[in-house]
Amino acid sequence: MPITPEQRDEIDRLRAVTATTRRATVPALEEILYQPVELLDHGFVRVVDYMGDDAAVVQAARVSYGKGTKKVSEDAGLIKYLMRHRHSTPFEMCEIKFHVKLPIFVARQWIRHRTANVNEYSARYSILDREFYVPAPDQLGAQAVINRQGRGDVLEGEEAAAVLRLLREDSERAYSHYEELLNQREDGTIIDPARQGLARELARMNLPLNYYTQWYWKVDLQNLLHFLSLRADSHAQYEIRVYAEAMLDIVKRWVPAVYEAFTDYRQGGAHLSRNGLDVVKRLLAGEAVTQEVSGLSKREWRELMDQLGRSEG
Amino acid sequence: MPITPEQRDEIDRLRAVTATTRRATVPALEEILYQPVELLDHGFVRVVDYMGDDAAVVQAARVSYGKGTKKVSEDAGLIKYLMRHRHSTPFEMCEIKFHVKLPIFVARQWIRHRTANVNEYSARYSILDREFYVPAPDQLGAQAVINRQGRGDVLEGEEAAAVLRLLREDSERAYSHYEELLNQREDGTIIDPARQGLARELARMNLPLNYYTQWYWKVDLQNLLHFLSLRADSHAQYEIRVYAEAMLDIVKRWVPAVYEAFTDYRQGGAHLSRNGLDVVKRLLAGEAVTQEVSGLSKREWRELMDQLGRSEG
Amino acid sequence: MPITPEQRDEIDRLRAVTATTRRATVPALEEILYQPVELLDHGFVRVVDYMGDDAAVVQAARVSYGKGTKKVSEDAGLIKYLMRHRHSTPFEMCEIKFHVKLPIFVARQWIRHRTANVNEYSARYSILDREFYVPAPDQLGAQAVINRQGRGDVLEGEEAAAVLRLLREDSERAYSHYEELLNQREDGTIIDPARQGLARELARMNLPLNYYTQWYWKVDLQNLLHFLSLRADSHAQYEIRVYAEAMLDIVKRWVPAVYEAFTDYRQGGAHLSRNGLDVVKRLLAGEAVTQEVSGLSKREWRELMDQLGRSEG
Amino acid sequence: MPITPEQRDEIDRLRAVTATTRRATVPALEEILYQPVELLDHGFVRVVDYMGDDAAVVQAARVSYGKGTKKVSEDAGLIKYLMRHRHSTPFEMCEIKFHVKLPIFVARQWIRHRTANVNEYSARYSILDREFYVPAPDQLGAQAVINRQGRGDVLEGEEAAAVLRLLREDSERAYSHYEELLNQREDGTIIDPARQGLARELARMNLPLNYYTQWYWKVDLQNLLHFLSLRADSHAQYEIRVYAEAMLDIVKRWVPAVYEAFTDYRQGGAHLSRNGLDVVKRLLAGEAVTQEVSGLSKREWRELMDQLGRSEG
Repeated sequence: MPITPEQRDEIDRLRAVTATTRRATVPALEEILYQPVELLDHGFVRVVDYMGDDAAVVQAARVSYGKGTKKVSEDAGLIKYLMRHRHSTPFEMCEIKFHVKLPIFVARQWIRHRTANVNEYSARYSILDREFYVPAPDQLGAQAVINRQGRGDVLEGEEAAAVLRLLREDSERAYSHYEELLNQREDGTIIDPARQGLARELARMNLPLNYYTQWYWKVDLQNLLHFLSLRADSHAQYEIRVYAEAMLDIVKRWVPAVYEAFTDYRQGGAHLSRNGLDVVKRLLAGEAVTQEVSGLSKREWRELMDQLGRSEG
Repeated sequence: MPITPEQRDEIDRLRAVTATTRRATVPALEEILYQPVELLDHGFVRVVDYMGDDAAVVQAARVSYGKGTKKVSEDAGLIKYLMRHRHSTPFEMCEIKFHVKLPIFVARQWIRHRTANVNEYSARYSILDREFYVPAPDQLGAQAVINRQGRGDVLEGEEAAAVLRLLREDSERAYSHYEELLNQREDGTIIDPARQGLARELARMNLPLNYYTQWYWKVDLQNLLHFLSLRADSHAQYEIRVYAEAMLDIVKRWVPAVYEAFTDYRQGGAHLSRNGLDVVKRLLAGEAVTQEVSGLSKREWRELMDQLGRSEG
Repeated sequence: MPITPEQRDEIDRLRAVTATTRRATVPALEEILYQPVELLDHGFVRVVDYMGDDAAVVQAARVSYGKGTKKVSEDAGLIKYLMRHRHSTPFEMCEIKFHVKLPIFVARQWIRHRTANVNEYSARYSILDREFYVPAPDQLGAQAVINRQGRGDVLEGEEAAAVLRLLREDSERAYSHYEELLNQREDGTIIDPARQGLARELARMNLPLNYYTQWYWKVDLQNLLHFLSLRADSHAQYEIRVYAEAMLDIVKRWVPAVYEAFTDYRQGGAHLSRNGLDVVKRLLAGEAVTQEVSGLSKREWRELMDQLGRSEG
Repeated sequence: MPITPEQRDEIDRLRAVTATTRRATVPALEEILYQPVELLDHGFVRVVDYMGDDAAVVQAARVSYGKGTKKVSEDAGLIKYLMRHRHSTPFEMCEIKFHVKLPIFVARQWIRHRTANVNEYSARYSILDREFYVPAPDQLGAQAVINRQGRGDVLEGEEAAAVLRLLREDSERAYSHYEELLNQREDGTIIDPARQGLARELARMNLPLNYYTQWYWKVDLQNLLHFLSLRADSHAQYEIRVYAEAMLDIVKRWVPAVYEAFTDYRQGGAHLSRNGLDVVKRLLAGEAVTQEVSGLSKREWRELMDQLGRSEG
């Protein structure tokens, strides 16, 4: 259960309070403000605050005194232009703050994106909850053979069952031992009054990487889009991709014109190398180019044919 | 005149529009939202957007589901603790966006603070206005003798008059020549239809560094405080200090508890070196320490005595 | 003259000293270490220090104990793969430090690249030299008509002569007045012993933006390549492009395999949007696509046809 | 064993190769280049590359053409001045690259320092070694009572023995299960040819946080000093502090004058708040100040008395 009834109450209390503001406000985002989008078995992502909207991008690009332009269509056109020509600074003018609950191994990938602000729950200071990630059966991918860092077929039958059993048992045992080390149960009860209990900052090291942590993560729109271009991508690990996809939906609510430009130019497009572009030109000129004469390695050729949607060369 | 009537109208129109939000809102800051605080002869700083408040710092430090604490006094206590122990990440959870009009030589100092987002008015794309900075008479400092990068006495009489005359004349002439180069007057009139006019990106190079530029500058609270600790300081150049001081007043409206902690621990305090601390301990123990036996250089000794408010050693 | 005889001597002295090191060393870069590459009329860029080589990129990507691989060709292959798949962190493992002398208006564009370390000559502390930029006659571009931030035809005849005369005269006068304000000649002579002279931090504001400044600029290879991809591009202003092109030559000496991958995948390639890619696919399938049915705006269509090297649609 | 014989061989091979360079070179650092400093039970830190020396700080502060100054003592004086007056950019001009092997829970604290470049060993791509951290008996701190995030007394007797047993057993079992999940032994043997094995990116999640990872970490001197000021501090967790202390020794070899200034002004000193400074002034004036009349909270008063080395108020 990602959210306890007490947490749900706190969220509801916060959602019930409204104020009047002169700031740019996005009703579609206000609708879901503070609401957790539940992910994996115990995770969530929720928007806690935001600054700016589509018009703020335009306003900054123009360094204007009022709002960007009068017409929404002009704003959208300028935003597309900025995206196409890699003008990054206007997109930095919007900011968003998330509260995220996520497995530690996902947090370790996520934190590699440095241009963001983070406050993480401290397991030096506090005790972690008994919450760990176990993949759903359809996500139990076998090691991929060609792509050394991906997943292949989904495990089935007894192998799958054994994997799940082992993950669950180890995670449960780890938490019981965490309590042992702390000399304290999850509910605060002292186990043995004659013992002192190991320091929290040490006891935590016995927990596996599938345990959940949580943090506040604040980022500007430009860096969020960069994060999403890498993590909402098919090469990203599934467990971080579900977060990225949920955040992409949030971006769509928040800044629809930026979302449109992003999915058109960055997500949906393709980058061709000098040689790749040359191959396209020759193909368009009617030449029957093959990998051998393309100047591309086999791997590059295969990637290019994939991008162009051609089954063979 | 920092703001034209048209710009004033745009600002008034924006201020007249309000919306309902679930976000943290700070009435004292809403009051002045979009309003320019006028500085120097043509400059200003105005808040264009903001995210978070005092409670947001606490909320992030605790990674909480609702607001930080129930009581304002508890929040203030935690904020002081965070400031004292150099916990920087909770202060990064608030963000503010300014629109600033400032002389180019001030902009050149300002931009050295890298952890911020900037969109500057482009003189490649647009034509700059005829607006330049001339110091007020009481700011015409002579070169300081001891501090090689500061100001000494204020110039007076004929020397002062000559300086002002020269600055004004050169600035005016530079703009006329800028128009010449562009082959275009400020109001858009073409000077000589037979000429093409030099590219804007080249013509601008003839303008001196006291010309005004403007930008949108967005920064998190932690980095803003760092900026202010350096630029609202007595060693900062006057022309950037007036901006920093105006922004410090804005911080006071926005996050009063953070402001309080900042002025107490960072601005109002003193950093002692190992040897400086040792001198204090010896003085407190009743020893008559002099510079010679202090382990401090003459310069360090003078600085320490200044910090301790002692005229001599 | 970009370099005085005294500076030349200092450089020669530094070049004459060698030491033995266990660090990765690049002979082709050592050859030109400290040597200024002269640019524009008084500018230069010179390498002052560097860390790492092609193998360092591989070594970091593999987190290896020794050098990357045994064979240079394997390293080059991995570097291409990293570049193609946007793995940025291995390229951050090389670092380079430049000393650059450049006009202030170029410095203002340059400094917008924030992920770098900078120490600039301080005109608060020291007096600037009488050195300013005047474009060569073949660089006197008129304002472009379509591209609002570019240059069109080169000015000629009397208009060109007038522009050059005006730029030179204004720059010379500005320096004389700078001396007046400081009450001090370039050679240190006091002009009028009865006057104090305006503070340096104020006097400098009378100098135009074509005056030269200088700085140490240190950057990692990943961020340098990002800088070069924007500033060695045909859309960049000529005056910064000459610096970027000189630095690209330096990159070629320093990390030839990275240079190769960069020019192939980043500089020489093309990014297609989702719709642009779709047009390419339809063209390859033999369809006679026109702008009207392409889903692209006229501007996007024109840009795509340019990329594909097709004169018309 | 932190280093295998094969790794030792690779390191020795690298150390045996020298080259001639014109770059600033630091013999005391060359001596230990590539050599691991062993830490904890399986960890290490070793310098893999570096750029700059004490003189490079001075050279950048002066934007000079040659080396900083002629005399070492002048350099040291300027470096102290820069440190005292918080001039940070000259210290950014030196760069160092470490290879570090460290427990994952330490890596999670370390990575919070964002202004650095990192390449970590990928457990998506490769299989981790059977190496985990178990504290030495004298490091088995109990949870501290007052400081909620620290350690108190060292556990002893049966409690200590039980803790160590549990940590070792869980870590060993986790690795055996990791092999089970992967269907592959540490030596590469397939366990059951009929099974596929879980993807590496999933199997790793069963390992606890005391497992070792490794990375290349590159940072400039300014940010390294900031890291060390926080992590070589008595409030830092012991397991990261041992790394910071080893790196501080390396800084001493590398840039002795910077090290001296750092330990004097930053590490050895004290920061007083406005009220704290006021108390010191009143004490020096002979007033018998107590906490009650000091304007300080009890906690602040205790901290101040500690800094001043006074047992009571």
